[in-house]
Amino acid sequence: MSKNQKLPLAISFGEPAGIGSDLILRLFAKRKKHTLPVFIVYGNLAFLKARAKRLGLDIEMVACAPENAVEHFANRLPIMDITGEIADTPSEINKNSAPIVIEAIRRAVGDVKAGICSALVTAPINKAALYNAGFNHPGHTEFLASLCVEGDKTPTPVMMLAHKKYRTIPLTIHVPLSDVAKLISQDTIIETTTIVAKDLEKRFGISNPKIAIAGLNPHAGENASIGLEDRDIIAPAIEQLQAQGIDAIGPLAADTLFHPPHWAQYDAVIAMYHDQALIPIKTLAFDKGVNITLGLPFIRTSPDHGTAFDLAGTKKASVKSMLAAIKMAKKMSNE
Amino acid sequence: MSKNQKLPLAISFGEPAGIGSDLILRLFAKRKKHTLPVFIVYGNLAFLKARAKRLGLDIEMVACAPENAVEHFANRLPIMDITGEIADTPSEINKNSAPIVIEAIRRAVGDVKAGICSALVTAPINKAALYNAGFNHPGHTEFLASLCVEGDKTPTPVMMLAHKKYRTIPLTIHVPLSDVAKLISQDTIIETTTIVAKDLEKRFGISNPKIAIAGLNPHAGENASIGLEDRDIIAPAIEQLQAQGIDAIGPLAADTLFHPPHWAQYDAVIAMYHDQALIPIKTLAFDKGVNITLGLPFIRTSPDHGTAFDLAGTKKASVKSMLAAIKMAKKMSNE
Repeated sequence: MSKNQKLPLAISFGEPAGIGSDLILRLFAKRKKHTLPVFIVYGNLAFLKARAKRLGLDIEMVACAPENAVEHFANRLPIMDITGEIADTPSEINKNSAPIVIEAIRRAVGDVKAGICSALVTAPINKAALYNAGFNHPGHTEFLASLCVEGDKTPTPVMMLAHKKYRTIPLTIHVPLSDVAKLISQDTIIETTTIVAKDLEKRFGISNPKIAIAGLNPHAGENASIGLEDRDIIAPAIEQLQAQGIDAIGPLAADTLFHPPHWAQYDAVIAMYHDQALIPIKTLAFDKGVNITLGLPFIRTSPDHGTAFDLAGTKKASVKSMLAAIKMAKKMSNE
Repeated sequence: MSKNQKLPLAISFGEPAGIGSDLILRLFAKRKKHTLPVFIVYGNLAFLKARAKRLGLDIEMVACAPENAVEHFANRLPIMDITGEIADTPSEINKNSAPIVIEAIRRAVGDVKAGICSALVTAPINKAALYNAGFNHPGHTEFLASLCVEGDKTPTPVMMLAHKKYRTIPLTIHVPLSDVAKLISQDTIIETTTIVAKDLEKRFGISNPKIAIAGLNPHAGENASIGLEDRDIIAPAIEQLQAQGIDAIGPLAADTLFHPPHWAQYDAVIAMYHDQALIPIKTLAFDKGVNITLGLPFIRTSPDHGTAFDLAGTKKASVKSMLAAIKMAKKMSNE
């Protein structure tokens, strides 16, 4: 048994106007049924109490340090209280909340890095709400990376989507489709695949992982008759990866690659763009997929959905992806 | 009972070096188990006999006209014999075969158009093999369209992929990904969706079909913050379609659109490019999908795979997609 099994997970509560806190509270209320691992919520205690009341959940909560989370968890929800005032207004962003949301993430990261918590699970944030408070990162993940700068080195975070043994990584993410081809380079393919290979070993205990790389064009370019990138950029990058001892294969036609029995032959598939990765994982495992950030000095998972303002303060949002994110974080930290 | 139920399907045998004939022969050998509808094969009788022998299939065959297919089908395979000499050389293209392959398709189309056969099922061809014999169409489907010219009007064929109630249509097909954005126009969206709506009514008996249109960019452009095409091209095209009385909706984020319960809410989904349509259908129904050509003056289906030279002359290729194509053609011609 690793020492991490006695450490709690850290969960940052995310945007209060969204569904993040709802999911955490609803899951905690059924912690036995879900066989939840011990966690501590980084968030605002008064707000969480108000939200629990709104949801009709009878949950005892306690402000405590992560070191004391284990002793409380069976009976009450441990909260690392980030003080301040947040009104419980589902779907309406409260301008007081941004600094608290940011501080919750910062503190959670600090405690995971310090080895006081075993891994980080983040509930979704609303970037626009944070920009107004001076947050200047393109997204949640980049903010986490910025908290891990060492000297002049910022880690390169890599987003992986996972469901059971099906894993995929989009090489480019929130960019227009017309920009995808020009953003793909041998360097990004090699850097990303190397991080994936390393973290599959380190975080998932998979030695010498087998990684498939999807083609960019239909049928992976069909011998350069449909676009040149597969032959001229992706194939040479794969050769270099192989020369470095990484078991990479491709470019493979993306349309047949994600058929589950084919997909399962690989420990991960590198996709070239957002929808090429997200369509298959969501077709297969709509609300059960987990977003895992590789390349950081700690384990971080999150649900693969957003704040879903329209469902906040109700019990209508599915808890499945958040539950999967919590279980995945626990599993990864035990290996 | 429609009169079509008494007409045979026409199946063109496709490229002899590929798996098409293998699949037809293997299916016929188990016609009772598969409850196959009556069909007649447009192909070369001597070649089909040689291929059956190679596969160890004891099948009686008879050269006959489509009018006589029904009386023979229970006991022997009806063949519309396209004479000539084709050696049985799996995976090796025989230069004699191209004119026979082309003539088989031409005759089958003629008989379907004449109302002697109920619908056309095509086995895969190898375009390169035909180009050398003067075939000058970009693909199989365009060749079929060229056989349906009336006056100066060539029909616009539209490829739809289907499995059970899941249907999707790629707006652009075998083009480099970097060209997709510039090939998408309001006109092509409107023309394609109109053909789809019309044929879903005519061929599938779905009145006022509900058609979802996928976004081009991640999250359908997220209010034009990730690419402009969703707002500036796709959305106005949908408004026009709606003004024409077509129940079209979108642009919808493609990553969540193909989750089966979501997909099933629509009679069809128009995707913007090859992999956006092909990834979900193959993830869901790898070797059971059917390719249906809409927009032609007759029903045409085909399996959603190619010639698979490496499997020709063996029994290793899956018959499922060809079987699904035959059953779909029968079902469509009965409605």
